[in-house]
Amino acid sequence: MARALTIIPIDGVAEIGTGDVLAELIVAAGRDQGTPCVDGDCLVVTQKIVSKAEGRLVELDPDDTDARRRLVESESTRVLRRRGELLISETRHGFVCANAGVDLSNVTAGFAALLPVDPDRSARRIRDGIRAHGGVEVAVIVSDTFGRAWRIGLADVAIGVAGIAGVVDLRGEVDALGRELQVSEIAVADEIASAAELVMGKADGIPVAIVRGLDPAWFRDGTTRELVRHPSEDLFR
Amino acid sequence: MARALTIIPIDGVAEIGTGDVLAELIVAAGRDQGTPCVDGDCLVVTQKIVSKAEGRLVELDPDDTDARRRLVESESTRVLRRRGELLISETRHGFVCANAGVDLSNVTAGFAALLPVDPDRSARRIRDGIRAHGGVEVAVIVSDTFGRAWRIGLADVAIGVAGIAGVVDLRGEVDALGRELQVSEIAVADEIASAAELVMGKADGIPVAIVRGLDPAWFRDGTTRELVRHPSEDLFR
Repeated sequence: MARALTIIPIDGVAEIGTGDVLAELIVAAGRDQGTPCVDGDCLVVTQKIVSKAEGRLVELDPDDTDARRRLVESESTRVLRRRGELLISETRHGFVCANAGVDLSNVTAGFAALLPVDPDRSARRIRDGIRAHGGVEVAVIVSDTFGRAWRIGLADVAIGVAGIAGVVDLRGEVDALGRELQVSEIAVADEIASAAELVMGKADGIPVAIVRGLDPAWFRDGTTRELVRHPSEDLFR
Repeated sequence: MARALTIIPIDGVAEIGTGDVLAELIVAAGRDQGTPCVDGDCLVVTQKIVSKAEGRLVELDPDDTDARRRLVESESTRVLRRRGELLISETRHGFVCANAGVDLSNVTAGFAALLPVDPDRSARRIRDGIRAHGGVEVAVIVSDTFGRAWRIGLADVAIGVAGIAGVVDLRGEVDALGRELQVSEIAVADEIASAAELVMGKADGIPVAIVRGLDPAWFRDGTTRELVRHPSEDLFR
């Protein structure tokens, strides 16, 4: 039998403040609930707690729509679409999402959370910290919840990765019938982020999940740049 | 601790032919490998074997690009973009994807697989069959591998659902800090399809996975129409 995958929510991480060392808190919370991280795990950590730990919070009156619009525009490098208060834009990282990832939920009233400046670096820092505090070698994905073109509903994607591929390229491999694969580049980091979201629950505020049993071949130096389509290659920008 | 999720690949399903009863084969394969389906599981079944079982195969010379183009156009209701041999179009179901879901990999040479006519009905038929052959109540998602706007790489999404929500609406719920949630509609069926893809592997050709431990509140009569954004509501069509 091919290997099964297990996704374990970590729900004992306390409310995060600026300067908190996420790796230390995650290692402790995993141990406290009896599911410590082990070698080969991939940890998915929501953007919200990463932004809080990194102090990426700005004061914002939630009822001041002008201030909110200015903040979103200042976090955008290019506006794709605008409808009412919703703005679909490209961030400095190259992500296309609603309101440049600026988020008001699960943040203290009067504040908004911005995306981390360099989410790959954030992921690397957590990964290094888990090695230091937990003595284990894991991959880390920083996830966020994005809308999609054409389909209703939001899904979690990877905005930062460390120690794991963004995209796995199967080109050149052959299918079970010996034909070269058409379907070739799988966005595994996004799929892992989506899988982890299933145990998190927006309302519960579970900020971390362990994904255990992933293909060892996917563990390598990765970057979310693998996942960002360059505007010149994009048919929908 | 919140409940963990387990994703179990079922790899003993033989090559599928027209008229095969998928539910019977899936129940048998699950039992044979020691992981029978149980009440509350969600089965993810790839479109490829559903199309094969339903005889949705047409002869196609893979080197005849004109014939391929005509086939893709005949499966499309609207063409969004065209670049070389790649065509991004809308299918009769309302899905936006490459080449109208027409697929040549893991199909006998000289044939192409088309999407099921009514993938929700396909999912219901498998669900009913698993109740009949396995005596268990499961949800079923028919999955396919789609590209995305803005992001590189493919990810699996739901093209048919039975017994499970397409989208879960959290509007009105409050976050851990008592604020009403901004992020509201989660495409759980797509996230489940993506999660299952992680144990399938395109080259291995594992066509079915059991997803065990999902939130019981998500099990209801669902339809993929919940996931299809109407063109008039879509900023990118």
